[in-house]
Amino acid sequence: MTAPTVCAALADFVAASRWADLPATLRHNARRALLNHLGCAIGVARDPAVRTALAVMRPFSGAATATVVAQGLRLDPMAASFVNAIASNLLDYDDTHLATVIHPAAPVAPPVLALAEQRGLSGAAALHAVLLGIEVACRVGLGVSPGHYARGWHITASAGVFGAAAGCARLLGLTAAQTAQALGIAASQSSGLVENLPTAAKNVAVGNAARNGMLAALFAEAGYEAAPTAIEGPLGWARAMGDVPDVGAMAGELGTRWEAARNTYKPYPAGIVFHAVIDACLELREAIGGDAARIEGVTVAGDALLLARGDRVVRNERDARVSIHHAAAIALTLGRAGVAEFEMPAVDDAALARFRGRVVAQLDASLPRGAARVTLRLADGSEQLRTVIAPRGSLEVPLSDAELAAKFRSNAALGGLEERSDALVAALWSLDEAPSLLPLMRLLA
Amino acid sequence: MTAPTVCAALADFVAASRWADLPATLRHNARRALLNHLGCAIGVARDPAVRTALAVMRPFSGAATATVVAQGLRLDPMAASFVNAIASNLLDYDDTHLATVIHPAAPVAPPVLALAEQRGLSGAAALHAVLLGIEVACRVGLGVSPGHYARGWHITASAGVFGAAAGCARLLGLTAAQTAQALGIAASQSSGLVENLPTAAKNVAVGNAARNGMLAALFAEAGYEAAPTAIEGPLGWARAMGDVPDVGAMAGELGTRWEAARNTYKPYPAGIVFHAVIDACLELREAIGGDAARIEGVTVAGDALLLARGDRVVRNERDARVSIHHAAAIALTLGRAGVAEFEMPAVDDAALARFRGRVVAQLDASLPRGAARVTLRLADGSEQLRTVIAPRGSLEVPLSDAELAAKFRSNAALGGLEERSDALVAALWSLDEAPSLLPLMRLLA
Repeated sequence: MTAPTVCAALADFVAASRWADLPATLRHNARRALLNHLGCAIGVARDPAVRTALAVMRPFSGAATATVVAQGLRLDPMAASFVNAIASNLLDYDDTHLATVIHPAAPVAPPVLALAEQRGLSGAAALHAVLLGIEVACRVGLGVSPGHYARGWHITASAGVFGAAAGCARLLGLTAAQTAQALGIAASQSSGLVENLPTAAKNVAVGNAARNGMLAALFAEAGYEAAPTAIEGPLGWARAMGDVPDVGAMAGELGTRWEAARNTYKPYPAGIVFHAVIDACLELREAIGGDAARIEGVTVAGDALLLARGDRVVRNERDARVSIHHAAAIALTLGRAGVAEFEMPAVDDAALARFRGRVVAQLDASLPRGAARVTLRLADGSEQLRTVIAPRGSLEVPLSDAELAAKFRSNAALGGLEERSDALVAALWSLDEAPSLLPLMRLLA
Repeated sequence: MTAPTVCAALADFVAASRWADLPATLRHNARRALLNHLGCAIGVARDPAVRTALAVMRPFSGAATATVVAQGLRLDPMAASFVNAIASNLLDYDDTHLATVIHPAAPVAPPVLALAEQRGLSGAAALHAVLLGIEVACRVGLGVSPGHYARGWHITASAGVFGAAAGCARLLGLTAAQTAQALGIAASQSSGLVENLPTAAKNVAVGNAARNGMLAALFAEAGYEAAPTAIEGPLGWARAMGDVPDVGAMAGELGTRWEAARNTYKPYPAGIVFHAVIDACLELREAIGGDAARIEGVTVAGDALLLARGDRVVRNERDARVSIHHAAAIALTLGRAGVAEFEMPAVDDAALARFRGRVVAQLDASLPRGAARVTLRLADGSEQLRTVIAPRGSLEVPLSDAELAAKFRSNAALGGLEERSDALVAALWSLDEAPSLLPLMRLLA
C-alpha cells in the first residue's frame, strides 16, 4: 500500500474531523483567532488601501450576500472575502504562525465566514472550518519552510490559498475526494511575492488567496479535478516553487500535532521581532517612574535578524513598524505601542524623532531569535537594563483572553465600531453556540 | 543612469506604442491571433468543462456587460474573461509562441475584449492592446525559458497574467507609470502548474491569468503600487520561481524584435510535436491513393521529445491528442485530423484502435525538434516514406489567411455558430475599422 498523497491525507483529515471531538483549548483557539482577525479588519476599515480594494471589486460582485467588515455593505462571497482578507492583514497586526510566519486567519476566515453567512450555516460550522483551514495552511507552509519564504514567496498568500480551500471545502460539506481536488486546484492558484511586500501589491495577493481558495472549493464541488500529486509531485507546487517538500511536516501526525495551536496574536502592530524591544522598554519606563526625560541614551541589543530588519531610518509608517529606534522611542516616551503610535503623526513628531536618534542598535549573537536586551543610560550616570527572551504574545507568554478582547476593543474604536465592542466580543466568545452568523454579521456591518 | 526595471521598460513601450505606426504585417497578425483565438473558444462552447466554469462563475458576476463566447449570455468583464480564456485554451488548439510554448491569446484577448465591449472602445484599440499584451506575455516568458516550464510552471498562465495586465493597461489608457505598477501587481498573481495539466485544474489557472491581469490593471488605475523590481528583483517573480531572468530577452530590442510576430496557429488540435507526423501521413495517404487498406505497417521516427511525449497507450481524448499512434491512424485512414478525430468516438473506434497497433515509434536523434519521418510498409512489399521538417502552422510554413478562416469555420460549426461564420470572419478581418466591438460581440453571443 502506497502512502496517500499530501492532498488526500489532508483532505481525509479535514472531511473526517468532528468539532465536538476536538479538545476544548483548540476550539477556544478558533474563537481567539476569529476575535483577533475581525478586530484587525475593523481597525483599518477607513484605510485608503481597504477603501480602494472595495471600490475596485464592487462592480465585480454578484448578489450581495456577504458582509464586508465595518463598511456598511455586503458583496458576493468572493468579493467580500477579497476585501476582508486585505483588511485583516493590512498592518500585519493579525495572527502569526511563528514557524512559517504565515498570518493564517487572513486568507482562511473571510471566505469561510462569507460562505457561512450566505448559506445560513452555524457558528460552530464556521469556527470548525476556520480551524481546519488554519491547520492546512500552516502545515503546507511548514513543509516548505524556511526556503519558500527566503526565496521570495509571501507565504501568507502562497500557502494561505490551501487553507482557504480546505476551510471552504469543509464548510460546504465536500467529500474527502472533493476536498483533495480542492487542494489540488488551490495549488494552481498559489502566488504572492516578498519583493512586493513594501507595496499595496501585497494586498492583492492576500485577497486572492482568500477568494481563490473559495473558488477551488466551488470548482471541486462542481466536479473539476486536479492532479493527486499537485503539491508534492515532480512538477507540482512545492518543487515548482523551489523546494523539496517535507511531506511529513505537511501530512504527518494529523490530529495529534496541531499547528493551529501554535498560532499567536500580536500585542503591537509592529514586526514580531520588535515585540521584545517594546516589552523591555515598557518595563524600563515603569522602573524609572515614567520619566523619559531622565534618559540620555538607549542601547538595544539583539540577534542578527533584529538588526537586519530594524536598524533603519524612519520615513513612513511602514518603516516605523520595523524600526528598533521607533519601537524604543514610543515605548519609553509614550508608554504605549498601539496602532496610532506607528502612524504618520508619530513618525513626524519632532520629539520622537530626536529620541529615535538617541537609540543605538547593537548585535548580541548570544541572544536567541526574537529576544532583546535594552540598556538605558540615565542622566545621573546610572544604568537600567532589561532582557526579554519571550515577549508578550509569544507562544510562551500568550495574550490572555482579556488582553485579546482589549486589543479588539481598541481596533473597534479605530474602525468606528466602538459602541458595538462589547456585543461583538460576547458574540465571538459564544459563537459556537450560534445557530447562524447573522447576528454577528449585523454587528460587523 | 541606471537601466530601467523590466516593468518600467515594458510599460514605457506599451504606453508609447501607436497602432498606426506598426508594420502592416504585425497589425494583420493581431487580427489573425484574434480570429484563431475566437474560433477555438467557439469550438468548445458545449464542452462540459466550459459549461462548469460558466456555472461556477455566474453567481459571482456583477453587471453583465461582456459577452461569453457562444453561450448566449453576458457576465461582468472579469467573469467573462475567466470563462473565455478557459474555452480558447481548453484543447491547446489555440496560438503557440514556440520559443516559450505560451498560448498567449487565451489569457490576453478575453480581458481586453471584455473591457473594450464594456467601455465602447474601438476595434483598433482592442487589436492594439491584444498585440501588446501578447508581446509582453511572450517576452516575460522568454526571459525565464526554458527553465521555468521545465520546473513545473504552466507558462501560458504564469506569464500570461503579465500580458493580460499589459493589454488591459493599454486599453484603459493607463500612463506608463501606472502600466508599470500593473505589471508589478500581476507578478504577485502569477501561478499555474504543469503537474495539473492533465486535469481541469489547468483551466482555473488559465482563467485566473486573464481575470487577474485585468484586476492588476484596475488596481494600478486606482492607485495601487508594486515594487519596481517585481519581476527581476532578488525576491521577485523570476527568482522566486527558480530562474535568473534574462532581462535582455524580456526588455531588450523593444519595437524592433517582436515576439508577437513569432506566434503560430495550429492546423490540428494535437500536441505541436505531432503536427509533422500528421502532415507526413496526410501526404502519404495521397501518395497511395487514399487506400489505407494497403498499409501493413507504419514506422514513425522522431527526436527524443516526440517519443517521450507520444509513444503511449490511448485511453481518452487527452491521450489521443498526444499520441504518435493515434495521429498516424487518423491521418492515414481518415485523411483528417480535426477536433472530432480526437474525441471519444475516434478513441473507441475498433478499426482505429487496430490501426494504432500497427504504428511503431522509433527514435531518430538526427531529426530536429518538431520533425518526423513516416515510413509505410505496403501489402505489395513496397515502402513509401515522407519526412517533414517544418509542419504546416510552423513559423516556416504558416497557415494562410484562408486556412485560418477555414479552421475558424470548422470551429464555428462545432460551437453551433455555423451560420454566422462568414459574417464573423468578415468582421474580424476588418476589425480595425470598427468603431465599436458591439457588432462583433452580437455575432459571438
